Amino acid sequence: MNKEIPYKIYLEEHEMPKEWYNVRADMKNKPAPILNPATLKPVTVEELSPVFCEELARQELDDTTALFEIPKEIRDFYKMYRPSPLVRAYCLEKKLDTPAHIYYKFEGNNTSGSHKLNSAIAQAYYAKQQGLKGVTTETGAGQWGTALSMACSYFDLDCRVYMVKVSYEQKPFRREVMRTYGANVTPSPSMTTEIGKKINEEFPGTTGSLGCAISEAVEAATSCEGYRYVLGSVLSQVLLHQSIIGLETKAALDKYGIKADMIIGCAGGGSNLGGLISPFVGEMLRGEADYEIVAVEPASCPSLTRGKYAYDFCDTGKVCPLSKMYTLGSGFMPSANHAGGLRYHGMSSIVSQLYDDGIISARSVGQTEVFDAAQQFAKVEGILPAPESSHAIRVAIDEALKCKETGEAKNIVFGLTGTGYFDMVAYQKFNDGDMADYIPTDEELERSLSNLPKVD
Amino acid sequence: MNKEIPYKIYLEEHEMPKEWYNVRADMKNKPAPILNPATLKPVTVEELSPVFCEELARQELDDTTALFEIPKEIRDFYKMYRPSPLVRAYCLEKKLDTPAHIYYKFEGNNTSGSHKLNSAIAQAYYAKQQGLKGVTTETGAGQWGTALSMACSYFDLDCRVYMVKVSYEQKPFRREVMRTYGANVTPSPSMTTEIGKKINEEFPGTTGSLGCAISEAVEAATSCEGYRYVLGSVLSQVLLHQSIIGLETKAALDKYGIKADMIIGCAGGGSNLGGLISPFVGEMLRGEADYEIVAVEPASCPSLTRGKYAYDFCDTGKVCPLSKMYTLGSGFMPSANHAGGLRYHGMSSIVSQLYDDGIISARSVGQTEVFDAAQQFAKVEGILPAPESSHAIRVAIDEALKCKETGEAKNIVFGLTGTGYFDMVAYQKFNDGDMADYIPTDEELERSLSNLPKVD
Repeated sequence: MNKEIPYKIYLEEHEMPKEWYNVRADMKNKPAPILNPATLKPVTVEELSPVFCEELARQELDDTTALFEIPKEIRDFYKMYRPSPLVRAYCLEKKLDTPAHIYYKFEGNNTSGSHKLNSAIAQAYYAKQQGLKGVTTETGAGQWGTALSMACSYFDLDCRVYMVKVSYEQKPFRREVMRTYGANVTPSPSMTTEIGKKINEEFPGTTGSLGCAISEAVEAATSCEGYRYVLGSVLSQVLLHQSIIGLETKAALDKYGIKADMIIGCAGGGSNLGGLISPFVGEMLRGEADYEIVAVEPASCPSLTRGKYAYDFCDTGKVCPLSKMYTLGSGFMPSANHAGGLRYHGMSSIVSQLYDDGIISARSVGQTEVFDAAQQFAKVEGILPAPESSHAIRVAIDEALKCKETGEAKNIVFGLTGTGYFDMVAYQKFNDGDMADYIPTDEELERSLSNLPKVD
Repeated sequence: MNKEIPYKIYLEEHEMPKEWYNVRADMKNKPAPILNPATLKPVTVEELSPVFCEELARQELDDTTALFEIPKEIRDFYKMYRPSPLVRAYCLEKKLDTPAHIYYKFEGNNTSGSHKLNSAIAQAYYAKQQGLKGVTTETGAGQWGTALSMACSYFDLDCRVYMVKVSYEQKPFRREVMRTYGANVTPSPSMTTEIGKKINEEFPGTTGSLGCAISEAVEAATSCEGYRYVLGSVLSQVLLHQSIIGLETKAALDKYGIKADMIIGCAGGGSNLGGLISPFVGEMLRGEADYEIVAVEPASCPSLTRGKYAYDFCDTGKVCPLSKMYTLGSGFMPSANHAGGLRYHGMSSIVSQLYDDGIISARSVGQTEVFDAAQQFAKVEGILPAPESSHAIRVAIDEALKCKETGEAKNIVFGLTGTGYFDMVAYQKFNDGDMADYIPTDEELERSLSNLPKVD
């Protein structure tokens, strides 16, 4: 127990988890099933298979199997950038003059710049296994698109990314990383799909939206022989793959005899948070341990803290299955919030159920205070964090400062999901003092929540 | 010896070197002394001290002390991103179908994106120790400026960066990273220095040059109480700090009983190459081992392969001491080559002497073949390399393919100095097929070499 804790705890390669953990297996209250939008009945693997790879459809619907073996090919790929370090934030602790011990699991040390690669490589693998030619997806900020491009390039799969037009134009570098990995990147709405043509006709000059890009990607997958659609967050299969984050975190803590008191993660669609907390929540559900778990979301898109727990569409185009989740309504348009990955109107059904059951808590934070935390962190810890990740940093710093008041030496663990190299436009706004905070009014939320689909 | 080699060899923190190694101590033919441009006599610590920090001036001139203790404060900072991994490129080997074993020392896992941070933190530390208020420097592509900004922020030093105006405007993101770390970034030529004003008057609308930025930074340091000038490459002190790269590489190889056959590094000013090879060259000089060492430079700026070994100015403004080195002439203007860090007209005096003595060899490679190697590497190894680093990748791949011909299982080690996230404009040119190769003509080189200073 008195082993000196290094700045970076790296597991050995042989200590890397060989199985993903499916937290649903230990949940007494299972997440509500996803529904076929046509029949309003729970979807089957057969119904999902024209859109998703079969094995992924199976993983999506399996809420009883606790452990899934990670195929060797995926583990070999993981070894290029995993195990990722669990970092003891000695310098931040010193700067804050806090008795708290702060740890962060850093997922940014790979070219996609975030944890998204953990699921991208799994999804590409199963597509390859199924003998597919390629996959389609949408991307907004571009982290997911980059991760999928890397994964497809590794398995020699065609990768077609529909990138929201405004991002395609404003983030040319993200687009070029994807192209360097051989992906075909199309600004959405495009003239290559029926839905794209229709939208371009109806709204000439539109710069697109995530909802539209999803619809185009789904159409491209289902209308093209040998293609399937893949998605980087929200889905339970994605949380399954992302459990590698939490499993490694727990293994590293256990190795040094550290018991976490608090676990903090940013939450957009829930992929990072769900992955990080899964094994810890599992212990809680089995009555083996207790943790304080905090989901941090932007005040501009507060699905957990101000949304409604109800069935809703996963996409603006309403082509995907219905999911019961904390939602702001599928028509909710978040303001120009720079934390691109946290702009989703809904939340993973697993995270939603855990929150509804009181197993995890949630907080919302404003953008300016988030960038202030990001800058503090960057200056002493040497990593320029992604805006998304910085939501977790904000709460970790707040909690560490509370410990300074109370004198508690809490062990605070947070997820640092990625780096901010492609988010310098946002940093520039912050540096120039031009960053605005935006909080939706109650009226806005009421309006966007008034159109939830009727499900019993 | 039969220990299985992991994808990434991480040393433990306690295995991190505690001393830098000064290869000059083992060189029989010492690098020629740097000369005071006014007297043409070897400079003294006293003469250097108004410009450089005293301890750094001492390190610069010391060619007999082999080991310099790394101060604890610097080692603590190093622990945030070091030891850096030595990666076995299993996936690249498989892709190339080569019997060669390829290893790369990866220095890009820190926010500055390169090895520059190793010396930046040392230089900032000695400035702080001396009680200075701040430091000044110039930056072109921006890696050095970013590294220095991070280091100064950590030690709470003021950091003033003169950034070549064309880069300031074309690379706004690099600039914003520096600003996020609290640096004051001024486009050069500026109106804040006498030399800047003069140049702006003489050449209205000029977009600047590295030579001009150096002159402004030196003027700012020497005219401002409590400031000194710092430099990120070429100098022997920088190679001393960068020896951490080679020392860790050797320690990691030794740990697994691997004997390198070839060591490859890109060479601009020589800081990365010199640091990587120092301990290996030391063994050669002491007759303990033999290695094939290759410096790789761009065909557009071929100081070793086509330059002259002579005393020359280190800067275009001719304000710095004279150094004997392989040079293309201080007035040489490389073409619009995107590998920004490899555009220097000269070469570290240590590297120059080792090359002149035949201890290391050199090759030049064209830009398009370099980006082709970069893309090949990125696709299978998952890291998007910096253009500079990709020069080394090109030669490593070429050598691995030769091994495929001959059936040799050579151990090839190369330095992967950094990441290319801020170089996407160059990648875009490559992706679009718009990348041009440029090789200076003999006449151009003769012209720029005709103005070398007369020494003796």
